[in-house]
Amino acid sequence: MASGYTVAVVGATGAAGSTTLKILEERQFPIRELRCFASPRSVGRLVTFKGEPHPVRAIEAAAFKGVDISFGSAGTAQSKEFTPMIVKAGAIVVDKSNAFRMDPAVPLVVPEINAQAAARHSGIVACPNCTTIVTVMPLKPLHDAGRLRRVIATSYQAVSGAGVNGIDELRQQTLAWARGETIPPQHFAHRIAFNLIPAIDKFGENRYTAEEMKLVNETRKILDSPDLPLTATTVRVPVFTSHSISVNAETETKITVEQAHRLFSSFPGLRLFDDPSEQRYPMPIIVEGQDDCFVGRVREDISHPSALNFWVVGDQLRKGAATNAVQIAELLIR
Amino acid sequence: MASGYTVAVVGATGAAGSTTLKILEERQFPIRELRCFASPRSVGRLVTFKGEPHPVRAIEAAAFKGVDISFGSAGTAQSKEFTPMIVKAGAIVVDKSNAFRMDPAVPLVVPEINAQAAARHSGIVACPNCTTIVTVMPLKPLHDAGRLRRVIATSYQAVSGAGVNGIDELRQQTLAWARGETIPPQHFAHRIAFNLIPAIDKFGENRYTAEEMKLVNETRKILDSPDLPLTATTVRVPVFTSHSISVNAETETKITVEQAHRLFSSFPGLRLFDDPSEQRYPMPIIVEGQDDCFVGRVREDISHPSALNFWVVGDQLRKGAATNAVQIAELLIR
Repeated sequence: MASGYTVAVVGATGAAGSTTLKILEERQFPIRELRCFASPRSVGRLVTFKGEPHPVRAIEAAAFKGVDISFGSAGTAQSKEFTPMIVKAGAIVVDKSNAFRMDPAVPLVVPEINAQAAARHSGIVACPNCTTIVTVMPLKPLHDAGRLRRVIATSYQAVSGAGVNGIDELRQQTLAWARGETIPPQHFAHRIAFNLIPAIDKFGENRYTAEEMKLVNETRKILDSPDLPLTATTVRVPVFTSHSISVNAETETKITVEQAHRLFSSFPGLRLFDDPSEQRYPMPIIVEGQDDCFVGRVREDISHPSALNFWVVGDQLRKGAATNAVQIAELLIR
Repeated sequence: MASGYTVAVVGATGAAGSTTLKILEERQFPIRELRCFASPRSVGRLVTFKGEPHPVRAIEAAAFKGVDISFGSAGTAQSKEFTPMIVKAGAIVVDKSNAFRMDPAVPLVVPEINAQAAARHSGIVACPNCTTIVTVMPLKPLHDAGRLRRVIATSYQAVSGAGVNGIDELRQQTLAWARGETIPPQHFAHRIAFNLIPAIDKFGENRYTAEEMKLVNETRKILDSPDLPLTATTVRVPVFTSHSISVNAETETKITVEQAHRLFSSFPGLRLFDDPSEQRYPMPIIVEGQDDCFVGRVREDISHPSALNFWVVGDQLRKGAATNAVQIAELLIR
């Protein structure tokens, strides 16, 4: 019998799920047996892993018997429905959805930041929202060095954050434009081609969107700073993958640009990319396909004695989702 | 002889210049004679005004004799070169370039905000940078009502801000993508199609770009608040026209969302567009072709006891350039 783990990928045909398969392969995760799952309409399709076809199965308890680790890459509703069953079948679930992130019993983990939290799981480890992951990566070394006092995050989010439907919608709308046609929005509330939509997910009573409150609440949980003052504005932009965030971070102890450069360049998973004279700054087209989050445009906030502005970009499907989930699984098998 | 003024448009073939002609027509500016000017390579071309062709002339002193008002829609270098000559010929220059904006002897005017400043000109009135205009419009009523204490502006700027070359580059790159091809960037430093470029104009010693410092310094001058703490991040996005800015504004006196709604909806040139439950918020595709700046996503900053977040979008070629310039001219002839 081959050594390794029996691994399930739930939502294997989606954008995050198929990237998870790619990352499992790239990082040579020790897999003895792979089982791929998706919603009924995808059952019977084949997905490829290490050059081999794998049939997509229906999500039912019996099929999870013997699974060690299950990656949840489906939506929040599906995750709420199926995760308890999968845990009961004996698997540890690394869940990418919003279903359990703020559950006090569930660790919310970015391995470079709070790996130790993963050990305290009771069957589920949650993977944060993609925008949270990219934003919190550079915040962590600043927090450790100077204690964050207030954070203002403003995002530029790719359509990949809305899954394959989001990617397809930008593609189809742009192709229609090239033919001199327009097609109505289907997945997004408004046209996304050559436009900006300053609203992601539903609005809450405080006039923030759910996406914005995820960024606020998840960052606090990951940094173990439940009272950290934080505000966010999240915007969908016509970019295929990679989320960008403009961050203003105030610290108790002043951090200079030089210090921030040192902190960012020595933090695992971050790549300092900040050479304005050479027109080098993080951009989606540079970061796409990379596991690191790229940080640049670091400068002192001229409106405040102890704050920095910077710009961070991360591949939403990789570090923002699949890579982070596989890193969590690597922690679990250590 | 027809009543009205002799008007010159310098840079009449560019994006801002041709929009200026359109706005002069729309607002029925009283023109007795129109003279159009551009760089040598455009001389002899025809531009259309009120259905009539007008030949493009070379910029030389004799041609400005008798001109009452000259709209400067050329670049900064050209404006520095030609404006003194045009003023000497007897015209008042409404200049859209960066050449004179921070000159203490030159008023920098957004008519809804500081109309009275225009009267103090000595031949030149400067029109602010497009991003500044859109940002400062909602800041003014907040400043009057609660005294601004700190502003953090984060922009999403359309390619029209880079003129016709910028618009053409996004179009050509996107059409190439639709054909399955890629073409190298020519006008921008990097690809703009499906990408974000977090750098507009040159970098200064403080690691801010010239575009960011324009937003900072011009806002202070327009609001007559030379010490107002302000910081900015400016980003080019793949949108054709209309600039969007996410603004965080701290005030001495707390302003509630309800108060801000009242302030914004009663301020001339601003349109409150803030109904999340109906998915109504300002977007470039809605604002394109409009003279008003649209403001929405107004909410209290949950990280601070006396700050607001909001999102403002303005057509960069209209209120961000031509409309504001024509409004200045309307003040001058009053």
